[in-house]
Amino acid sequence: MYSPTPQLCTTKIFGPAYTVQMVDAADTTSPKPSQHFVDGVQKDAVVFISQPEGFYSACWGGLMTTRAKYLGARGVVVDGNVRDLGEHREMGFPVRLCPFPCSSKCRKRKFTDDVVHKQVFAKGTSALGSNTFTRASGLNVPVQFTSETQKRPLTINPGDLILADQDGVVVVPVEHAEKCLKICEERFEIDEKTMEALENGEPMGETLARLRK
Amino acid sequence: MYSPTPQLCTTKIFGPAYTVQMVDAADTTSPKPSQHFVDGVQKDAVVFISQPEGFYSACWGGLMTTRAKYLGARGVVVDGNVRDLGEHREMGFPVRLCPFPCSSKCRKRKFTDDVVHKQVFAKGTSALGSNTFTRASGLNVPVQFTSETQKRPLTINPGDLILADQDGVVVVPVEHAEKCLKICEERFEIDEKTMEALENGEPMGETLARLRK
Amino acid sequence: MYSPTPQLCTTKIFGPAYTVQMVDAADTTSPKPSQHFVDGVQKDAVVFISQPEGFYSACWGGLMTTRAKYLGARGVVVDGNVRDLGEHREMGFPVRLCPFPCSSKCRKRKFTDDVVHKQVFAKGTSALGSNTFTRASGLNVPVQFTSETQKRPLTINPGDLILADQDGVVVVPVEHAEKCLKICEERFEIDEKTMEALENGEPMGETLARLRK
Repeated sequence: MYSPTPQLCTTKIFGPAYTVQMVDAADTTSPKPSQHFVDGVQKDAVVFISQPEGFYSACWGGLMTTRAKYLGARGVVVDGNVRDLGEHREMGFPVRLCPFPCSSKCRKRKFTDDVVHKQVFAKGTSALGSNTFTRASGLNVPVQFTSETQKRPLTINPGDLILADQDGVVVVPVEHAEKCLKICEERFEIDEKTMEALENGEPMGETLARLRK
Repeated sequence: MYSPTPQLCTTKIFGPAYTVQMVDAADTTSPKPSQHFVDGVQKDAVVFISQPEGFYSACWGGLMTTRAKYLGARGVVVDGNVRDLGEHREMGFPVRLCPFPCSSKCRKRKFTDDVVHKQVFAKGTSALGSNTFTRASGLNVPVQFTSETQKRPLTINPGDLILADQDGVVVVPVEHAEKCLKICEERFEIDEKTMEALENGEPMGETLARLRK
Repeated sequence: MYSPTPQLCTTKIFGPAYTVQMVDAADTTSPKPSQHFVDGVQKDAVVFISQPEGFYSACWGGLMTTRAKYLGARGVVVDGNVRDLGEHREMGFPVRLCPFPCSSKCRKRKFTDDVVHKQVFAKGTSALGSNTFTRASGLNVPVQFTSETQKRPLTINPGDLILADQDGVVVVPVEHAEKCLKICEERFEIDEKTMEALENGEPMGETLARLRK
């Protein structure tokens, strides 16, 4: 999944998931939410929209982002299509383009204000709105991420922590968050030392054997 | 394979379709046009090339654009692959990059000269030319757009109005053009009011119920 | 469909292939190399990594590029996924963004220093590292490139010449290099004349008939 601006930007989004399950608009048996799905966005949430496969239409656009932004969303991840790319850029929501090339050291970046920036991540774009194609069904329910190459089934639960940058989207279940943070900090430190060794010409094999014990 | 980067530009192309049906170069039974397909491009047309599925080669490149530009084409849409990306940029044809970020309001944009700009839209790129892979067959004939996720079959007829921007490509049959324009103008106005309401914190559900009656 | 705006850079990579065959990490029967695969990179080589299909993980990242850069690699082509995009940019390795628009004539470009620039080309990105997903097996062995639309099977042999730019990746077997260069020079000259004729308004059909005899 990619941000509707290239992968030029080194900014990230991070926050707990507010999940939305879309279904075929022709599906009359699935539940219907009591409110418009975007009105349920909580402050500081990352909206995660699951669009059923096989739809050519977009299920997120400029009006939705306007409302989500007002409600304080930190970002949006659409497992499906988005539209109104120009409008998003002008809204300052999905795309803060970095100076090229970025001069600060990536590995040393913390979650300061200039790195965390509101953005939309999506699989694709479409000029078609959702009307007559899809509609929201479940709000804050577990949703599945599927892809041809993602072999292990992946469930996104409401409240799961979502972290997304130009490399992709990562979902961390809340119960693993503390352990995950600890591992990341340890690995971050090892990676820093590895990078330094490699810059000094040490071979990869020996460096990994020494530092990743 | 491509290096990561995407849709930066808020410019559009718009015009009546000049359609070209490509076929397998090995196909000896399909019609052969009496002229080179690019010599048939009319002034102000948007060239729409339909490349058969399953080909890794490009069916449009820098020489073709040079000729189409000379004949006054407003743009090119390739349901297939394009090559010579650098050459296209240098020709000022496919890519007019906008200042980042764009400062003018998107929804207020009209089709002024700084918004409509000659560009090529394509599904993908290839370093291979069309020779030995595909050849032109029908000129200004109905062509089909197909994609795994486009469920409804879509025919592009010569003269259909093509509008393309960073969200995607839209085809409007001439007989629906006037009605479509009217609906768009109405919807544009509703969207403007909706956006204003959302910016003022009105919920999406109530706003849509009030304005999209 | 998207505009060829994406690939913004007109720089190229060029060099002999150092090939790496990745296999499923669970595969215990395939050979294991005696050294870390990135330590085998030769000076001036283009690293070509073949990741088996169906993996969601990345098999190349910032640490690998740091080592390959130290060893003097000219570029990397990954038939699979890459991560650490920000880090790569900061390292000055994969992405040297050109001024927009590029002003020099593309067709007249030679392989001067400002055109050849170290870069990574990949099919996709992933936030996941290779651990538990894939591992290196053969080093400097013939590898296969596969894609749904690439109908003719393509083998990349160690030492094959790799040339990659924004249009795609081309592989030239060493035994054909001289003949290929000769054909390219001839064709380059014909294309220059064709371009000039087209810019002067000569029809494509007649121009090709006259110049490509």
